Order: sequence, then C-alpha cells, then structure tokens
Amino acid sequence: MLTLYTYFRSSAAYRVRIALGLKGLPYASAPVHLVRDGGQQHSPAYQAINPQQLVPALTTEDGTVLTQSLAIMEYLDEAYPDRPALLPADALGRARVRALAQAVACEIHPLNNLRVLRYLMQELGTTEAQKTAWYQHWVCTGLDALEAMLASSGATGRFSHGDRPSLADCCLVPQMFNARRFGCPLENYPTIARIVAACEQLPAFQQAAPEQQPDAQA
Amino acid sequence: MLTLYTYFRSSAAYRVRIALGLKGLPYASAPVHLVRDGGQQHSPAYQAINPQQLVPALTTEDGTVLTQSLAIMEYLDEAYPDRPALLPADALGRARVRALAQAVACEIHPLNNLRVLRYLMQELGTTEAQKTAWYQHWVCTGLDALEAMLASSGATGRFSHGDRPSLADCCLVPQMFNARRFGCPLENYPTIARIVAACEQLPAFQQAAPEQQPDAQA
Repeated sequence: MLTLYTYFRSSAAYRVRIALGLKGLPYASAPVHLVRDGGQQHSPAYQAINPQQLVPALTTEDGTVLTQSLAIMEYLDEAYPDRPALLPADALGRARVRALAQAVACEIHPLNNLRVLRYLMQELGTTEAQKTAWYQHWVCTGLDALEAMLASSGATGRFSHGDRPSLADCCLVPQMFNARRFGCPLENYPTIARIVAACEQLPAFQQAAPEQQPDAQA
Repeated sequence: MLTLYTYFRSSAAYRVRIALGLKGLPYASAPVHLVRDGGQQHSPAYQAINPQQLVPALTTEDGTVLTQSLAIMEYLDEAYPDRPALLPADALGRARVRALAQAVACEIHPLNNLRVLRYLMQELGTTEAQKTAWYQHWVCTGLDALEAMLASSGATGRFSHGDRPSLADCCLVPQMFNARRFGCPLENYPTIARIVAACEQLPAFQQAAPEQQPDAQA
C-alpha cells in the first residue's frame, strides 16, 4: 500500500492527492500537522523520513520514501502506466505540461509557503498587510503568466492541456484554492477559472480537497 | 538549431547550459539582459516568447518555444535519447534525481531570485544586511536538507546519483555558484562540495559557467 505523508492544507500534498485520485490508486494517509507541536514536520521521526522537513512524502509499495510533489507525481505516472496518464505521450506536450506545472511549483508556491510567511513576520517584522500584499503580488505575477500561457495556446482544451486532466491541473487547482483563501483578485483569469471549474467536477479533485481530508479541522 | 534565451548569471539558464553540454547538443545563445534596459525580460518582444518574463526559454528545431528549466532539460533528455542520459532508467532512480533537482529548483532558488530580492528592498524596505540574511537563510535551509539526502543514501556516488552526472547535478552546481557569490557558509556540506568538485572537472560544467558566457561582463 502507498502511504502519503500529508497535511490537509498543504498545497504540495494536495497536488499528490489529486494525482493519486486521477490514477485511481488507493493509499493510506499519514497526517503531519504543520502547525501543532511546533510543526510535526520538524520532529526527529519525520526528519528521518524526509530531511527536507516538508510534506508530502510518499512511501512506495516496497518501502522507498519519495519526496517533492512533482517527482512523486512523475513516479506514479511511470510506475503505473496502465492507469490514466498524467502526462501526454509526445515530448513537446510533456514539456508544455511540465512547464505549466512548474510555473506554479517553482514560481508561485515557494514564495507563499508557511515557512516563508513566518520568516516575513518573525524575522523581517512585516505587518499583516505587508504579508498579504507579498502573497497577492506573487500569486498575481504567476497567474498573469499562466493565464497568458493558457489563453494563447491551441493546446489548451477543457483542461490545461487538451481534454484530459494532467500534472498541470494537479498543480493549478491547489494554487487557486490558496489564491481564494488569501483573497487574491482573480477576475483577470478567465481561462484559469474555466479550467479549474472543469477540474472541480471530477471526483479525484473533489476528494483531494483540503476540507475532505481526515486531518481537516472544524 | 536550438536557441537558448539566456543570461550569464541566471541560475536557471546555467542549469540548461550544463544539460545541453552533457547531451553534446550545439545551440545558439540569445542573451536577455536581466538588469539592462529595466530588464530585457520585460520587453514586449521577449514577453511574446515567454509570458513568464523569465529566462531560460529554448526554441526547438521546429521553432516551438519551451520554458521552465526543469521542463526544458527533461525535453532534451526525451527528444535526444541517443545522447548521454540526464535521468537514470529506473522509476525510483528517476524519482530520486528529480527530487534532488527540485530540492534546489522549488525550495532554494525561487526565494533568491533577482525579482524577490528587489521586492524585499523596494517594497519591504529591508536593509542590505537583512537581504543577505534572507538569502543565506534559504540557501542554508535547503543545503542542510540536500546534504542529508545525499550523505545518507547509498545511491549517491561520484555525482548526486551514481557515477554519471544527472539533472540533479545540473541544478546543484549553479546553486553552489550562487551560494559562494553571496558568501553563504558552506563548511557543513562535505558531500555537496565533493560532488560539485567532481562536476567542475567536466567540460560541460566548465563551459556553462557564467564567466564563460558571451554576455558575461568584465
């Protein structure tokens, strides 16, 4: 059985939960609470699993620990090729899907992580308003680019790439969840909004949502 | 002919230059100066190539524009399978190499980008010392994790994964170049230092170095 170390509100864990759902792979959830106990990801027990002290991590069926959400999703696609594919078959299409995923995972999300927001407040003494402005600035900068990439390409379909959900959608939907949560202005992203709405009709996306997780709080 | 939109000191462009060298692929350089003219990456001409306003971008032989350094390197590996591989053949090995690469590309580098440092200074009014502390904090946090991942694994060899350079090394070497440039304390990373020294003996790494680029300034 696959085991996912996860936190309900972690955007990176959310991506992998969607991917597991799209592949139709059952898994056990091992919750790691990022706030409680000073952050359970910093515990010696979890550090032995993932020295990066980040979620997600995934234990494969043979007990190997994998880290980094994009690497985990690519592994699932390679290890279970008979399940629905998260990447298209052609090299150019794969490059496009990966670039869309990385436009979220390398450009937006790393700047708005819990640990980064904490550093802003605790080390740089930013105000709540400055923290929110920071958050919204990087979300909007990234979504401006993504909207342009999606709206200008004939490869965009019902989903980010064609008419089947992909790795790009696994990254996009959690990012939009965060954007809404932090009140980012989203009216300039009609293509993204349309794709996210299509994703949210699918059970894999619905079941991966933070509020559906066993560790979600009231 | 492949064309790489590059800036000599861009860490992400540096990764792709190494990958092109390891694959033995000739390419044309199209320099995009990230500082001059208010940042040439923001020009309408470059935005038409890459709406993300970031380097690198790569034009393939059929004229398709690819973006995001990790996606570009994976494309090169898939499109030129007869050249030396940047990823191992097995799914678990590929997942490990990708996670090592992403531990740089998703956890360290995005926080220390030029645009982020500018935001700190211009919008948050940080001092030079606070900016440096920020830079060093994220580099050390990331390298602590990477050193633990590399030192604890039997899969680490002369390079990050076994005895052949991989995607992980393409990301590690530019990150260490940046770490040195910003005076980060590096004495706690013996495994990383050993791997970087092995990489720097190879022509692909030497020729990709910032100071070797046509657009490098005196």
